[in-house]
Amino acid sequence: MNNTIKVAYAHCDGPCGIYDPASARIAAEAALSMTKKILALTPPEDKADPQAVAAYLNTLSRYVAIKEEQAHLAKTELLVLWTDYFKPEHLEKYPNLHDTFWQAAKLCSAVKVELSLHHAEELMEAIEEIHNIFWETKGRKVDWVTAG
Amino acid sequence: MNNTIKVAYAHCDGPCGIYDPASARIAAEAALSMTKKILALTPPEDKADPQAVAAYLNTLSRYVAIKEEQAHLAKTELLVLWTDYFKPEHLEKYPNLHDTFWQAAKLCSAVKVELSLHHAEELMEAIEEIHNIFWETKGRKVDWVTAG
Amino acid sequence: MNNTIKVAYAHCDGPCGIYDPASARIAAEAALSMTKKILALTPPEDKADPQAVAAYLNTLSRYVAIKEEQAHLAKTELLVLWTDYFKPEHLEKYPNLHDTFWQAAKLCSAVKVELSLHHAEELMEAIEEIHNIFWETKGRKVDWVTAG
Amino acid sequence: MNNTIKVAYAHCDGPCGIYDPASARIAAEAALSMTKKILALTPPEDKADPQAVAAYLNTLSRYVAIKEEQAHLAKTELLVLWTDYFKPEHLEKYPNLHDTFWQAAKLCSAVKVELSLHHAEELMEAIEEIHNIFWETKGRKVDWVTAG
Amino acid sequence: MNNTIKVAYAHCDGPCGIYDPASARIAAEAALSMTKKILALTPPEDKADPQAVAAYLNTLSRYVAIKEEQAHLAKTELLVLWTDYFKPEHLEKYPNLHDTFWQAAKLCSAVKVELSLHHAEELMEAIEEIHNIFWETKGRKVDWVTAG
Amino acid sequence: MNNTIKVAYAHCDGPCGIYDPASARIAAEAALSMTKKILALTPPEDKADPQAVAAYLNTLSRYVAIKEEQAHLAKTELLVLWTDYFKPEHLEKYPNLHDTFWQAAKLCSAVKVELSLHHAEELMEAIEEIHNIFWETKGRKVDWVTAG
Repeated sequence: MNNTIKVAYAHCDGPCGIYDPASARIAAEAALSMTKKILALTPPEDKADPQAVAAYLNTLSRYVAIKEEQAHLAKTELLVLWTDYFKPEHLEKYPNLHDTFWQAAKLCSAVKVELSLHHAEELMEAIEEIHNIFWETKGRKVDWVTAG
Repeated sequence: MNNTIKVAYAHCDGPCGIYDPASARIAAEAALSMTKKILALTPPEDKADPQAVAAYLNTLSRYVAIKEEQAHLAKTELLVLWTDYFKPEHLEKYPNLHDTFWQAAKLCSAVKVELSLHHAEELMEAIEEIHNIFWETKGRKVDWVTAG
Repeated sequence: MNNTIKVAYAHCDGPCGIYDPASARIAAEAALSMTKKILALTPPEDKADPQAVAAYLNTLSRYVAIKEEQAHLAKTELLVLWTDYFKPEHLEKYPNLHDTFWQAAKLCSAVKVELSLHHAEELMEAIEEIHNIFWETKGRKVDWVTAG
Repeated sequence: MNNTIKVAYAHCDGPCGIYDPASARIAAEAALSMTKKILALTPPEDKADPQAVAAYLNTLSRYVAIKEEQAHLAKTELLVLWTDYFKPEHLEKYPNLHDTFWQAAKLCSAVKVELSLHHAEELMEAIEEIHNIFWETKGRKVDWVTAG
Repeated sequence: MNNTIKVAYAHCDGPCGIYDPASARIAAEAALSMTKKILALTPPEDKADPQAVAAYLNTLSRYVAIKEEQAHLAKTELLVLWTDYFKPEHLEKYPNLHDTFWQAAKLCSAVKVELSLHHAEELMEAIEEIHNIFWETKGRKVDWVTAG
Repeated sequence: MNNTIKVAYAHCDGPCGIYDPASARIAAEAALSMTKKILALTPPEDKADPQAVAAYLNTLSRYVAIKEEQAHLAKTELLVLWTDYFKPEHLEKYPNLHDTFWQAAKLCSAVKVELSLHHAEELMEAIEEIHNIFWETKGRKVDWVTAG
């Protein structure tokens, strides 16, 4: 089976070679935005009005679900970079690489679990750091541009 | 129920307000990359070697699946912009908006169905045009930067 | 590469040719049903009973999630028709086609964001109109039958 | 916790009450259509032309993936009916109900695993039978209309 | 087409032959755990504090969503065993097989719809019974080990 | 917002606390099984018989898709353990933890990209090692039992 493996290895350098930390950044921006919107919501004054209560809960539970989804997506996109893009030679140059990604992934979980503006902003900073490392390994200078 | 509707409308301007054509662009770049890689594949010379044939088909059918997935993702991301971000006032300023998105969506389908470098590149151009319209509506100047 | 493209074009007329507005209709019916059920829910009288509160919120947040999912599915199914089934020749005959789909997609978003019986019913009407256009283009007479 | 359970039970009759065998039927029609299209494909005459080979394989492996997805969706939709819609009282009236669904689900698997026109058509017949049982339990007469 | 069907049948015994009731068990354990956590939550004392209310609802609606997802996953995993692993010869030996799975699937739905510790525990018992039947058909003795 | 964060932190120890390396093991077993089945496939003798060719390609491309899905699932399940279960105190005791997971994740990618029995078996060994570390941190002795 040696020759099978050799044939396959030729394409081992990844599925498409298109990696871009912007995917994680967009998702983290959305999670940050939802965190802000949830913290800004006001429960209905009249707690005896079933429809006002339901409208508030409809909005809040949608926002929580979108925050969950986007923080999860940010985590998934970060882990794609860590497991697929980064190679042993990068690890030599950036010896904290594993920990940088571990902490960033744990921040994604914190953004899901909590309603913490602080952690949502720390996640953005962590992704900016990864953006810088990533483009440095590519020998390119790409500005950190946010959509929000 | 009037007041329910009013409460809800206050958040009607979308789930998080974070839109970025970069999501569609990254997916389209990946689909273009896979198109190129598929067109560059060479079938095994010895068609009687079951494992060489299987290795070739393993690579090719993975590449086709990734192209499909990424072209589909590009389409989904484009349609999010069209249905959620763009509003009637944009349509007045860009009267071809509907058709621009329809053609771009049809290009995504073409990139799935075909192995066409030409259509994959046209899709990139369509997304660049949408990128320009999008940031113009935001009153911002954002460069068109690709990852590939 | 000319001949590659020609080979591929032969199958360009879509993946399977099976389109049916019933998919969007079923999802929209489910979203309408959830809207009604949410509006009919009554918060527990004893707001100091943690389990009664949790039971109410369990039901309500599940209903909101199902409404979200089904309204999203309705949108996805509508956009499949718009991007894959409808061709330039249909556009000539139905010059409002783009706007019909755009408005219907925006109604799907409204049904997600709001708790609006009115918009959920308007979505059903929009899908009925699309059902009629669709079957007319096929030269068939298919009754509008709902499941609910 | 008795009262929690009671509150919840009130909504126990399902998430939205909208069931329609048309969902399974549309998916099974798509799987049947893909089976036919795959069986009608012709491999390229010139097996030494890498791009003609790749175009054939692109088409074929997409079709297989769509057949897989649609047969799987048909199975999922059938199992929703079996587990959520049908109740013990229906089982009394239709004592073969369990077996009818088991055989239909196994046909979905056969349509995935095989390239069998025969099994894809048997699946359509099984869904028609389920359509008839379903609407009979609802006391309605709904015609069996296919999209293809 | 006879010979096509014959070729395909050779692989008809399933996609990979790896079945393990542990998948359903892990999901059901997670759903049971979430049920307990939801029932143990205390609403904020100060109902006028928007952020305390939002934090409580953030936690609760995430827990409900995870319970939903895990109970659904348990159902899906059980139905894979029922439709793909079990064959007519097993049905002869375990004549209640269909009903065992039907009841287990209905328990999954109950765990979603309700906040019932009782039903979440009954689901675990149903999966243990299926675990025993499954390994018996394999002629193996595998202990019932839980993660929680 | 201090008190919001405090409320949320109380549940910070994860969504449900149910972790089990069996999920990753089952997926890796399935990927190993598919690798073996693909390597054992024989192309049709008569390459001029379109239906025999299509039947072979139907089987092979389904197997490749299932291998892809299962290797991906193994990766996802491993990364859940790494990002959510393991805490800084575990890292002190297992200083190679990051690298163990990185290598295991890269093996998942190799199993997707290649047709390598060797890498599929190495992945099983990597998961067995993680199984041992995991249960050691829990202070439990759980046997390594495979389904295949």
